[in-house]
Amino acid sequence: MRYTNGFFPTLKEIPQEAEIASHQLMIRAGYIQKLSSGLYTYLPLGLRVIQKVQNIIREELGRCGAIELLMPILQPREIWERSGRYTLMGELMMKCKNREQKEFILAPTHEEIVTDIVSRRVNSYKQLPLNFYQIQTKFRDELRPRFGVVRAKEFIMKDGYSFDADQEGADKTYLDMYKAYERIFKRCGLKAVPVRADTGVMGGNESHEFMVLAASGEDGIAICKGCGYAANTELAERIPASREGGKEMPGAMSEVHTPELRSVDELAAFFKTDPHKFIKTMIYTAGGDPVAVLCRGDVDINEVKLKRALNTQDVALADPVTIERATGAPVGFAGPVGLKIRMIADLSIHGITNAVTGANKKDTHVVNVNMPRDFKAPEFADIGVVKAGDECVKCQGTLDVQRGVEVGQVFKLGTKYSITLDATYLDKNGEKKPAVMGCYGIGVSRTVAAIIEQNNDENGIVWPMAIAPYEVAVLPISMKDEALVSAAMGLYNALQKLGIEAVIDDREESAGIKFKDADLIGFPVKVILGPKSFKEGNVEIKMRKDGKSTIVPCEEAALKVRDLVNQEKLYV
Amino acid sequence: MRYTNGFFPTLKEIPQEAEIASHQLMIRAGYIQKLSSGLYTYLPLGLRVIQKVQNIIREELGRCGAIELLMPILQPREIWERSGRYTLMGELMMKCKNREQKEFILAPTHEEIVTDIVSRRVNSYKQLPLNFYQIQTKFRDELRPRFGVVRAKEFIMKDGYSFDADQEGADKTYLDMYKAYERIFKRCGLKAVPVRADTGVMGGNESHEFMVLAASGEDGIAICKGCGYAANTELAERIPASREGGKEMPGAMSEVHTPELRSVDELAAFFKTDPHKFIKTMIYTAGGDPVAVLCRGDVDINEVKLKRALNTQDVALADPVTIERATGAPVGFAGPVGLKIRMIADLSIHGITNAVTGANKKDTHVVNVNMPRDFKAPEFADIGVVKAGDECVKCQGTLDVQRGVEVGQVFKLGTKYSITLDATYLDKNGEKKPAVMGCYGIGVSRTVAAIIEQNNDENGIVWPMAIAPYEVAVLPISMKDEALVSAAMGLYNALQKLGIEAVIDDREESAGIKFKDADLIGFPVKVILGPKSFKEGNVEIKMRKDGKSTIVPCEEAALKVRDLVNQEKLYV
Repeated sequence: MRYTNGFFPTLKEIPQEAEIASHQLMIRAGYIQKLSSGLYTYLPLGLRVIQKVQNIIREELGRCGAIELLMPILQPREIWERSGRYTLMGELMMKCKNREQKEFILAPTHEEIVTDIVSRRVNSYKQLPLNFYQIQTKFRDELRPRFGVVRAKEFIMKDGYSFDADQEGADKTYLDMYKAYERIFKRCGLKAVPVRADTGVMGGNESHEFMVLAASGEDGIAICKGCGYAANTELAERIPASREGGKEMPGAMSEVHTPELRSVDELAAFFKTDPHKFIKTMIYTAGGDPVAVLCRGDVDINEVKLKRALNTQDVALADPVTIERATGAPVGFAGPVGLKIRMIADLSIHGITNAVTGANKKDTHVVNVNMPRDFKAPEFADIGVVKAGDECVKCQGTLDVQRGVEVGQVFKLGTKYSITLDATYLDKNGEKKPAVMGCYGIGVSRTVAAIIEQNNDENGIVWPMAIAPYEVAVLPISMKDEALVSAAMGLYNALQKLGIEAVIDDREESAGIKFKDADLIGFPVKVILGPKSFKEGNVEIKMRKDGKSTIVPCEEAALKVRDLVNQEKLYV
Repeated sequence: MRYTNGFFPTLKEIPQEAEIASHQLMIRAGYIQKLSSGLYTYLPLGLRVIQKVQNIIREELGRCGAIELLMPILQPREIWERSGRYTLMGELMMKCKNREQKEFILAPTHEEIVTDIVSRRVNSYKQLPLNFYQIQTKFRDELRPRFGVVRAKEFIMKDGYSFDADQEGADKTYLDMYKAYERIFKRCGLKAVPVRADTGVMGGNESHEFMVLAASGEDGIAICKGCGYAANTELAERIPASREGGKEMPGAMSEVHTPELRSVDELAAFFKTDPHKFIKTMIYTAGGDPVAVLCRGDVDINEVKLKRALNTQDVALADPVTIERATGAPVGFAGPVGLKIRMIADLSIHGITNAVTGANKKDTHVVNVNMPRDFKAPEFADIGVVKAGDECVKCQGTLDVQRGVEVGQVFKLGTKYSITLDATYLDKNGEKKPAVMGCYGIGVSRTVAAIIEQNNDENGIVWPMAIAPYEVAVLPISMKDEALVSAAMGLYNALQKLGIEAVIDDREESAGIKFKDADLIGFPVKVILGPKSFKEGNVEIKMRKDGKSTIVPCEEAALKVRDLVNQEKLYV
């Protein structure tokens, strides 16, 4: 591509609205253009990168026998009601009505549709297993779109759905897809960590997310430094680190007047003690009934874990009236001593001696509280937010907590959808059975942003070779020097013939501007034809990644560049 | 692809809902699956064909220097209000509201967005010309979806937009795109005719549609047998064929009582004369004022032409009250004699002697009406529907009228959008000018249906080689004969290595079923390994197109098939 024939609209200024590197760079380097909040055009450069990621996905899924199809974006409300997810997905789904007031969903995912296809077109075990995928624009009615294409209203997803005759087959397919995902992200130049994850609105019984570690990530990941156990913090099992120092004798429990003091921090200052000496007591409702939820003062409750422990999604903090009815005191003074409602406690309250907690009386706390002397041991569960320093349940190693961007997720769905939507088949004995399903997603546009998060410097993007929109920029430094320009064009044409994706910067611009734009856009290789070295018959080949520079005779440049490019593409 | 690993869900029955061949065959042969009215999944076979058409489009547009990008589907209502098209497009647009009640359009076309991008990212003449395109899912709130993917609510479009510095450049780009479209449809194996077309809601000053001739087509096309002039009947200029026989002397005008007789057919029977002796008079309103619209009894009014002649889109048949006020008579008895309102007449009423027409009096017509004796000559314009037998305005040849499916359209847009949405640039002298635009569309999914309309027989689809989902079916007739099966697999592998897209039908099914499915799906080449000829070391190569069959030695089959395939792909 000649630079003057393409569309490379770089910007000098860092866009103010963009908080993170990938968002800033995608706008500045001409990869995306904002239309409105959470809605972006992929400019030609951006689309080329998207297409390269798509091609890697297609190749790796093809290797697993997955077949591509394309399902409708618009879906009648009824099929979502049949699966029971119309209410479950709720406000996250974009909806529209046609002129006859019939409601359609702008599909965020396609379990319902693909299961319906299988129910209509598959009858026999001979047709199984089946593993479908599509690459498609998806929609979410995102309340706070941010970070550019990382959290957008409209984005590109690869979503896949598998149907096996039995659980054994489904487990094998899950593993195949897991491995394919590892290959895909590796080929994209990403360091992505598979972590155990919650199954959420998909349902099912096992799931892994693929997380790209990045400080800007919206997800927390607990990783064991010992055994490598990794899980989303929503789900990560942990043994809370003990905070108890030496042995302490239980003191006599007594009430203390604590007017208007409610938060652990206020109380710790008042009592001149540490937060870990407190038993926080929060009143929730679960399925309509009040539940007291206990944890140590330096720990927070993880509501995803809490819902699992209480075995219902219908869990919420109680309102002040309910709290007063359950504890006899206004908000802020609940505690386990003498409480009559169901109690569930995080593991962290094990072993606290002489704890401070609410007295279930206005403006009053109790000190020197000890279990089981002062209150009966409640149900225990791991319902606290994991923290760096907690212990790994697998190996007693130490957990670290990092931030990550989720780029993919795989789920074992079981027969939840195939039973509800009738995706059954006749086995060898003529018996009707439901297919066992899995589903598998990759956020394609988000993957591109994640690659940039991991691959940039102060000058711009540093593309991995396999994903770069173009592999090489040919930079003739003087457009006045006819011999030099003609040599540059010759080199550009030679690269094209060798199958190398090159751009020649044929603008009448200064060397400074050409270098700046090339580095901002992130071409992995620059081939520089400077007037001085060109007179000596040489060109400079400079790698974006490490700035390494080689001077080679002009006539050897094309083959040398091809080798450099192919070498870096062969790393998987 | 092994048949048993793929997804080839053919059906025996012709689906009842499908009226036309392409719709029936796409469902039966496993190319599409209906979700609900106007919403279809492209099953793996269907998507492969779509992708082949897309690849041809990408290649040919790339040859013209067009660059691909991808714009958002969701678009805020405001930008459509800025261009003035929110109301103009009206109910055809699907709309949705997010949870904050902000309205979005599901874009049917992208002039607004692409012009906004250019307004933000282009400043200088140095950046022009630019020619963008995208391939994307589009939406229409179709009142009566039908014919499968031909008229659907959700469909795949290629839409392109060009920006030139001046009209000369824009004209050249238009011509380039016109030629690219001819190549694209030719490579798809389509006979598509470019015809002059109305610019409709796009605006602009010139347009061509690419029409695939097919009896099931929803568009009419007038084609001159003499000079080749071709135009959509919405627009086709014509000289109405004269219906007058010999000379006739004007008679004396007189009133006739015609109780309850209103239609031309009823009146022709009553008067024992031909429809072409009548002057039909219809009362319309144009911009709020009543207008009498005249044409010969055997001609119909073309409202698209009428709107152009009256120079307003606000044209509609008048209601009974307006008609009575304008003519003094109830509906059905209007005529030009003595009428005081504006009159516009189709060319067809020229030269009628002794016409019959309404008397502007209840239950009364007048006979022996002659212009200008009995009424003043009205404004004349070509506002009638073109009919086979009308005369060509270019060469006085005879026009034929055929049916067609529109698969593409190109428009010269001028500066309508660039002025409204500020897509301006600074020219060499630093002067600010609006870019001159064009836009170009191809209905990708509809193109696939059109190819099937033109390429099918009683057994199924007959794919042109370049578009077939797979080029070759290898059919081992007995799966019990191990040597035969192993030879078939060898042949299949050899074809794959030669870059030929092959399917091996490895099902335990009869020869009859394998042949039937292969012909229904439409593989261009069948390679048949029958037990008898295989024993003699031979296989049969049979072309779907013409049934031509060749027997070749097994070991020569792969190369022979490759030559047959490549030969047919090389026709452009």
